[in-house]
Amino acid sequence: MAVNLKLPPAVPVAGVCLSACAAGIKANGSTDMVLFVLPENSVTAGVFTQNTFCAAPVSIAKDHLAKQNGAIQALLINSGNANAGTGEAGIKVAQGHCNALAELLECQDSQVLPYSTGVIGEPLPDAAMRASLPTLVNTLDESLTAWELCAKGIMTTDTVPKLTSKTLQVNGQTITITGLSKGAGMIEPDMATMLAYVFTDAAIAKADLDRALKTAVHGSFNSITVDSDTSTNDACMLTATGNGPALSCSDDQWDDFQDALNEVLLLLAQAIVRDAEGATKFITAEVTGGASIADCRAVGYGIANSPLVKTAMFASDPNVGRLLMAIGKVGINGLDPYSVKVFVNGLAVFEKGLLHPGYSEEKGSVVMQASDITVLVDLGMGGHQASIYTSDLSHDYVSINAEYRT
Amino acid sequence: MAVNLKLPPAVPVAGVCLSACAAGIKANGSTDMVLFVLPENSVTAGVFTQNTFCAAPVSIAKDHLAKQNGAIQALLINSGNANAGTGEAGIKVAQGHCNALAELLECQDSQVLPYSTGVIGEPLPDAAMRASLPTLVNTLDESLTAWELCAKGIMTTDTVPKLTSKTLQVNGQTITITGLSKGAGMIEPDMATMLAYVFTDAAIAKADLDRALKTAVHGSFNSITVDSDTSTNDACMLTATGNGPALSCSDDQWDDFQDALNEVLLLLAQAIVRDAEGATKFITAEVTGGASIADCRAVGYGIANSPLVKTAMFASDPNVGRLLMAIGKVGINGLDPYSVKVFVNGLAVFEKGLLHPGYSEEKGSVVMQASDITVLVDLGMGGHQASIYTSDLSHDYVSINAEYRT
Repeated sequence: MAVNLKLPPAVPVAGVCLSACAAGIKANGSTDMVLFVLPENSVTAGVFTQNTFCAAPVSIAKDHLAKQNGAIQALLINSGNANAGTGEAGIKVAQGHCNALAELLECQDSQVLPYSTGVIGEPLPDAAMRASLPTLVNTLDESLTAWELCAKGIMTTDTVPKLTSKTLQVNGQTITITGLSKGAGMIEPDMATMLAYVFTDAAIAKADLDRALKTAVHGSFNSITVDSDTSTNDACMLTATGNGPALSCSDDQWDDFQDALNEVLLLLAQAIVRDAEGATKFITAEVTGGASIADCRAVGYGIANSPLVKTAMFASDPNVGRLLMAIGKVGINGLDPYSVKVFVNGLAVFEKGLLHPGYSEEKGSVVMQASDITVLVDLGMGGHQASIYTSDLSHDYVSINAEYRT
Repeated sequence: MAVNLKLPPAVPVAGVCLSACAAGIKANGSTDMVLFVLPENSVTAGVFTQNTFCAAPVSIAKDHLAKQNGAIQALLINSGNANAGTGEAGIKVAQGHCNALAELLECQDSQVLPYSTGVIGEPLPDAAMRASLPTLVNTLDESLTAWELCAKGIMTTDTVPKLTSKTLQVNGQTITITGLSKGAGMIEPDMATMLAYVFTDAAIAKADLDRALKTAVHGSFNSITVDSDTSTNDACMLTATGNGPALSCSDDQWDDFQDALNEVLLLLAQAIVRDAEGATKFITAEVTGGASIADCRAVGYGIANSPLVKTAMFASDPNVGRLLMAIGKVGINGLDPYSVKVFVNGLAVFEKGLLHPGYSEEKGSVVMQASDITVLVDLGMGGHQASIYTSDLSHDYVSINAEYRT
């Protein structure tokens, strides 16, 4: 059902070993445990949910990442159960899995980062998960097939796996960036998204890696929304294995690397929106002419989170009034309605305080038939801009979320 | 379809004359024009939408109200067309109606306040509306039937009219407060709601009336949300005819009056939520133990605007995880998840960081069957509290809003 979701093909990042299996967490028997084992000199950066009720694995992963200053050996992920709202018991179980896996991998327990995604408030099936750890360790593999299996293994209500790569040349050497993500609902990330794992073979110091990840997340995972709901389990990780060329932020090629990283994260973030629960449209709210980026983002989210805009999009209804309402409700200081211009897929619909003279319902209906819709709003106030990405609000969204647990 | 919507019966406020007719704005031929003519010494207060794209009649009504310092003679309302996003032309048409009506009523044009509600971005049918003005003036009436007709005349997607009264005794004399409201979607008022008109026969000075209205609006119309979307046309008006007892804010009985006014506005505001588009549940998010009222309101809106909470409510699904997510995503400074307690219709569901030991899915399912659901969240931080009122998110909400104009 995903909307125009076609990602560039993935290339494995050399040295990263992966495996996945079904431990029985998901009732339907699908793959639900995933393990990444990282090359010895890897450096890992991460951003995590800002939700106060952050899940047990999020607390542990943040703690371990800080303790090791990014020198992480393994990422252990389960889908089907979020291990959130589970109190001290949830912490104990997740830490237990880190200890058990560290023993098998002969590393420190704080070199293992745990992640969970799925239903909130239910205890993890501890025994079944522990029993699957040797299987995961014994089936580690570097093949593309393993990457594809892992992209499936982290899915919950996703309908398709999300895995892509980009390569760039630095001083005649190739750098590969490969990432995978999951998520389809409870999506308005605040510092990160549901789950995303990105790997590169470049050799990058921790401080530079942190900075690169923060920059890339801002315009990607922190610019999407499905339902304005921020998950308890969001995490976005970036690992540099160090097997490839060395790079630092003072290098001439740093911007090329940052651009490539931005592109991978943007594609993975947009993939989540294209595969949003019940989505029939992929919507870009592009806001230009703002007095600040914050203003542009606020207007973008005003449009992207409006249930009335989203239901109109579902109906392919060129409802200009709802767009104006959504822009106006944000309360941008000094915004003059007579200076605002609105375009839908290039069609001028509103300017000088009223419908554009060349606009008609008929023309509006034609452009609204597209499954990718860009609403361009020019605020007429300054030189800043931002884009926010979202999906429509359909009957299937209601069905999926009214029936998710039943 | 309204959820448990039973309002105390209405009593006319003496001296207020009303009429309604069908001018042909609504395609189905329903009543769509309403006129209130106020006794000569009336004082009127109002609060209006904060939406930047506020409608033409909102600009005019604010302007006229200020110019006359509350000495208003008539309120003219149309439903079916919002006269918003219509630029200078929209202003001209609405002002023309004020002029024409002022001539018929022999008052100043700035003693007439115009209001519109309905579809945004389309021009008002000027000629048809002008033609209906003599009919409205010639059929003015003080009867309860006229009040009931007007409550119907301001409806758009409402399924039932919303009209109620409360009386109180002051020094052996009766004060009557009677109000009507409309609204079912595009509801997260910011200073006011879609449209609400409240009348009392008390004699109250403008400054006191302004203050009473602001106080009453805060806990009522400014504490409801259907879809987080703030209309371009919101207005809430309070008229004191002065035919009854005089009251000022320094009187002992002022608090009784304020309480009665609060109650009328709360009932009218809740009536909008009970009649919300597609609603099957009326939900109160009651937040206690906050460090501030602002914190409590933020958590209340976090729950009340969460599509995932609202779809779970529609499914009568006791999804505690989504409640925790919605509380946590607000980002209350210093909130400790281990101090938060959550109750659903009196059933303890969460405390000390995990599900309450006495809670079970079965018990949760039982309490969630009710059509009135109160989610009580104790933040464990201080002594402040607030309640926010909302509806669930159903298939009918999507249908209504995907088909509203088509």
